[in-house]
Amino acid sequence: MASHGPRGAALAIHGGGPTAVLNASLAGAVLEARGRRAISRFLGVRFGVVGLLKEDFIDLGAQPVELLEAISWTPGSALGSCRRGVDEADYPLLLDILARRQVRFVFFMGGNGTMCAADRLAEAARAAGYELRVIGIPKTIDNDLDRTDHAPGYGSAARFVACAVRDIGGDLWSLRERVTVVETMGRNTGWLVAASALARHREDDPPHLIYLPEHPVSADRIAGDVERVYARLGYCVVAVCEGQRDEDGEPFGADAFAPDGFDRRLSANLGHTLARGLERRLKLRARSEKPGLLGRSSSLFISAADHDEAMRCGRAAVQAALAGVSGMMITLVREPGPDYRCSTGLTELRSVAGRERRFPRQWIAAKGSDVTPEFLAWVAPLAGEVPPRPRLQGC
Amino acid sequence: MASHGPRGAALAIHGGGPTAVLNASLAGAVLEARGRRAISRFLGVRFGVVGLLKEDFIDLGAQPVELLEAISWTPGSALGSCRRGVDEADYPLLLDILARRQVRFVFFMGGNGTMCAADRLAEAARAAGYELRVIGIPKTIDNDLDRTDHAPGYGSAARFVACAVRDIGGDLWSLRERVTVVETMGRNTGWLVAASALARHREDDPPHLIYLPEHPVSADRIAGDVERVYARLGYCVVAVCEGQRDEDGEPFGADAFAPDGFDRRLSANLGHTLARGLERRLKLRARSEKPGLLGRSSSLFISAADHDEAMRCGRAAVQAALAGVSGMMITLVREPGPDYRCSTGLTELRSVAGRERRFPRQWIAAKGSDVTPEFLAWVAPLAGEVPPRPRLQGC
Repeated sequence: MASHGPRGAALAIHGGGPTAVLNASLAGAVLEARGRRAISRFLGVRFGVVGLLKEDFIDLGAQPVELLEAISWTPGSALGSCRRGVDEADYPLLLDILARRQVRFVFFMGGNGTMCAADRLAEAARAAGYELRVIGIPKTIDNDLDRTDHAPGYGSAARFVACAVRDIGGDLWSLRERVTVVETMGRNTGWLVAASALARHREDDPPHLIYLPEHPVSADRIAGDVERVYARLGYCVVAVCEGQRDEDGEPFGADAFAPDGFDRRLSANLGHTLARGLERRLKLRARSEKPGLLGRSSSLFISAADHDEAMRCGRAAVQAALAGVSGMMITLVREPGPDYRCSTGLTELRSVAGRERRFPRQWIAAKGSDVTPEFLAWVAPLAGEVPPRPRLQGC
Repeated sequence: MASHGPRGAALAIHGGGPTAVLNASLAGAVLEARGRRAISRFLGVRFGVVGLLKEDFIDLGAQPVELLEAISWTPGSALGSCRRGVDEADYPLLLDILARRQVRFVFFMGGNGTMCAADRLAEAARAAGYELRVIGIPKTIDNDLDRTDHAPGYGSAARFVACAVRDIGGDLWSLRERVTVVETMGRNTGWLVAASALARHREDDPPHLIYLPEHPVSADRIAGDVERVYARLGYCVVAVCEGQRDEDGEPFGADAFAPDGFDRRLSANLGHTLARGLERRLKLRARSEKPGLLGRSSSLFISAADHDEAMRCGRAAVQAALAGVSGMMITLVREPGPDYRCSTGLTELRSVAGRERRFPRQWIAAKGSDVTPEFLAWVAPLAGEVPPRPRLQGC
């Protein structure tokens, strides 16, 4: 694509929690920008908006290609990120900083909160008559971003959840002695816990039960389900996400002892609380497993498709900015056909800003828990390799 | 080695919790036994002693070599295991079962409890005048077996702990917003939590604090340590094992709400309880991470050295039994010299039965927490690959 716009610096900034492939998007953007005449230099902001306000920059253009390749396979945020949003009063300050550095291209990598800030910065620049091209690059492990088939970061997190449930389930099969609640990430949506179904390769493979926060469920219902599985198999693996709600819409396991000023939902301890409750009700041994942050931070679980798409989203963002686009987020568009393939597209930042995409009702199985085969077919290529565990003949 | 003893069936049995390479020992034994004239068939016991009493066997000799290879890289217990011990009244029953099946070689794979049962079975056979060769193959993630340099299973679990703390630490570095307690496995000994030190490659890399159960520590001491690290770095990663004791020798986080009849220590929730306590004391955000069973159940974290040694222990057990040895456990013997190498040796089953090897005092750093460089040099070759995370220049 030819460049028709201004020449100036580019800037990359991360917002919110990291994913396994956030750095792949960063590397993709930096590699795509190399040798482009319109981009005079490529600044990286350390630690998100907080760092931008402090003008805490590094030179991304000067990073060796091999290092960028290695960084792309390293989970986390290599720049550093932050959870602080952008206040109304920040926008003039930010524009001033960008203008002083002659920044003409800004790449925001983040979720729906970050896209909101990106949209408003683009608007502030327009209002101030400062020529600025702002592009959003999606990232989320939760897959709650709207207007894209899925978001980079989700595939690897889905692969982790599936592998973790398969492996923990295999360990528990060996001893067949108890009920185990595996708590996955996913605060409000069921995308991640749903992916645990990829762990199943044979009948009665774990997970035996999967609950989704889009379908609140009572402790009684869970206890009844567990009791039936346990009676049949002698053990039971339950997959549930940290955001599962009970029939009153309250989060299971919210910590009643959280100190004042802290969000009790953040301090929830769902798996442990649920396992304790199952022990009391069913008089069975029950424990919980919570693989936690490892689900987005271990390079060993990166999905090859996710890495490739994250990198392509970074490249597409630079291409779009140089082609004159602004105020848009890169999307992934699944192409029709028997083989999985995604191309990149564009959507307005405001079409995703502040919106949360929940797990679709039609992919929840009829009984109100577990997922449909259609979801499995949709998610399998995103997660990639989740092979079955080999078993001895006769076992 | 030539065989001088009786011809008969061999039998393999697992005891206690699985490791990442327990199946490698099984595969090693079965592969070594192939084509040996003295071994008429190779039975595998499903689900440990419980299965043996029920005569629940599979034919290990009939398993394809490629399947055994694949199984060797699969964590868990491919046979199934159990936690039940052997009662006094069981031994005559077991001998009767073995005699009816003409079993002359028994391979017990387990920890110190399993070695105790193996020893007593060997004794019962001697007393009954039944010719039986009983060999123990060590396995434990905790590394608490005596008389061996280390036990198969520990190296992979150590690698997991180091990788998990490195990766979770890298994720937390990106946001630098809180204190995180990473709870590792290890009920009574500090071997596993100590291995978290392998995560460090640069100054100030996580873990910033490591506590060992061999050195009880007060909540005040931990809070003071955390406060100092946080003031300097803006975040703090604490590594602590599930068995850490406070200054009164009580486990941190034992669950006061555990129902009657359950071991409160088993239901401990140490990381969560400690994080809550740090929040209250320090008025900082604190959370916990507990990677849990994944630490022994994910094939991606298997240490190559551990896999090789586990397999060699299985082979050595068959060689020893065919050479006429009984009542012994295979050991790993570290050879002197600059390069790491272990050969296998033998020790009497009763020398390890029921004994627990604790983390040596001289490898705890002078301040009473953290480990010495000597321990790091000792553990590094066992864990194998724990490479540093690449970082952008200027970050």
